[in-house]
Amino acid sequence: MVLEKGDFVKINYTGRIKDGEVFDTTIEEVAKEHGIYDPRVRFKAQAIVIGAGHVIPGLDEALVGMEVGEKRVIEVPPEKGFGLRDPSKVKVVPLREFKKQGLKPYPGMRIEAEGKVGRVQSVSGGRVLVDFNSELAGKTLVYEVNVEEKINKLEEKIRLLLERHFPYADPNEHEIRCEDGRAIITLSDAVKLRSDAFIAKHLVAKEIFEYLDGINEVEFQEIFKKPEEKKEEKVEEKKQEKKKAKPKRRRRKKSS
Amino acid sequence: MVLEKGDFVKINYTGRIKDGEVFDTTIEEVAKEHGIYDPRVRFKAQAIVIGAGHVIPGLDEALVGMEVGEKRVIEVPPEKGFGLRDPSKVKVVPLREFKKQGLKPYPGMRIEAEGKVGRVQSVSGGRVLVDFNSELAGKTLVYEVNVEEKINKLEEKIRLLLERHFPYADPNEHEIRCEDGRAIITLSDAVKLRSDAFIAKHLVAKEIFEYLDGINEVEFQEIFKKPEEKKEEKVEEKKQEKKKAKPKRRRRKKSS
Repeated sequence: MVLEKGDFVKINYTGRIKDGEVFDTTIEEVAKEHGIYDPRVRFKAQAIVIGAGHVIPGLDEALVGMEVGEKRVIEVPPEKGFGLRDPSKVKVVPLREFKKQGLKPYPGMRIEAEGKVGRVQSVSGGRVLVDFNSELAGKTLVYEVNVEEKINKLEEKIRLLLERHFPYADPNEHEIRCEDGRAIITLSDAVKLRSDAFIAKHLVAKEIFEYLDGINEVEFQEIFKKPEEKKEEKVEEKKQEKKKAKPKRRRRKKSS
Repeated sequence: MVLEKGDFVKINYTGRIKDGEVFDTTIEEVAKEHGIYDPRVRFKAQAIVIGAGHVIPGLDEALVGMEVGEKRVIEVPPEKGFGLRDPSKVKVVPLREFKKQGLKPYPGMRIEAEGKVGRVQSVSGGRVLVDFNSELAGKTLVYEVNVEEKINKLEEKIRLLLERHFPYADPNEHEIRCEDGRAIITLSDAVKLRSDAFIAKHLVAKEIFEYLDGINEVEFQEIFKKPEEKKEEKVEEKKQEKKKAKPKRRRRKKSS
C-alpha cells in the first residue's frame, strides 16, 4: 500500500546540498562521517504526519506514493526547500563596527547580529557585505529518504504527536487510551516541570482533531502522588495496603 | 466549635498601622473609604488554611480559637507582622544621581531603584538617604478580622486551594470529585492558557497532601474539544447527532 497524505510514518533521511556537503541527517553514523554530529541531538527516525508540514515541502510531497521500507533519492528545488535567496537580506556593515569589537572580517566568516546568523560575503573599502540568508536558501537539495514504519494504531498515532511536541519526554511514558470519541492521555512526569507544556497540549489537541477522524475530545491528565507513599511503593511493597488506609500511623505500625 | 490549625476558612479583615492609616482590606467599601481602592483588585473574603502561612503570622495565630461568625480586633507586633526594620536597607545615594534624571528629592518622596521601592529619608549636602525597608517593617499593626465561613466539605476545601493558586480562574468553573483517596480535578479553561499553571498544580497538590488527610493522589485534567463541534452545540443542537458521526460532510448535509 502506498503512502498518502495524513499517514503517520517514521522516516530516516539524509539531506545534502546538490554537489555539496551533507547538512542534516537522522542517522548517527552519517552525522559522524560528515562532521555534523552533535551529542545533544537524539539521532533516530523522525516521526511525522505526511502533509502536515513536519518536514520541508519537497520531502513531504515525495513521501506520498512511497511504500513502507522503500528508500528513495529525491531532488528538492529551492522553492520547495529553504526558499529562494532574498537580496534584501544582504546588509552593508561599516568596517569600523567590526574593528570596534576587535574583529577582522574575511569572506566566509560567520557572525551573529541581532540574534541572526550571517556570513561575510566581501570586504572592500570600509564596507563589509554580510549575507543573512539561510545558507540553504537558493540551493537545490538532494535527500535520501527511507520510510521505516507506518503507524496504524490510533493510540500509537497519538504517541507520535506527543513525541513531536514533548520532545524532552520519553514517549513510552505517556499512557494513552481512546474510547467513545475521546482520547485520554496521562502525561509523563517530565511534562509537569515544563512551563511550555501548555502550548504543546494545545498543539497536540489541534493535530489530533486535524488528522485523526473520530476523536472529538482530548483529555490530558497529570497525576501527583503523595511523596511519602511514592518512596514506600519502591521499598516495601507488601506493607502498601495497610499504609494507604492509615498513613499517619506509620511509625507505630512499624514496631508492631 | 473553635477554629484550629488546619481549618479551611474565609475571612474578611482590615489592617491598619497602630494609631495610623489603613493599609490593607478585603472589603471594597473600607478600601474606598480609606483611599486604597484599586479597581484591579477583587475585594472578597480571603480563602485560607489556618496555620499555612497564607496570612502574616500574627493574624494566622489569632484565628486559632476563634469561632465562625466572630469578629475580633487584634494587635500584631512587628516580628509577627512584616518584620523589624533592617538598618542596612537604608542606602546613601549621591544627589547627582537624582539630578541626572531631573529629579529633586525631598523627604517622603517615593522612588524606584533596581525593582525595589524606597522612600527618601533625608537630603543633606550631596547625600540622599533612601529607606528600602517595607513601609510596614517595624510597625505594630491592628487587624479587625471576621471569620465568615468554615469550609468542611472535602471538595470545597480543594476548591479553596484552587482559588488561591489559580487566582485568575473562576473557582466554580473547576470540577472536583474525590474517591478512593484520589482527588480528580478538571481545571477551568482559563488555566489552559497559562504558562505558570504548572507551578500552581505542584503547589495545590503539595497543599492537598499537607492539609487533607486521606488523599494520596491528585489528578489534574484539562479537556480540549474539537472546535467545530463546539460552535454547533450552541447554534444547532438538534443536528448535533448527525454531524458527530460524519463531521466532514457538513456542507452537503445542509442542503438536504
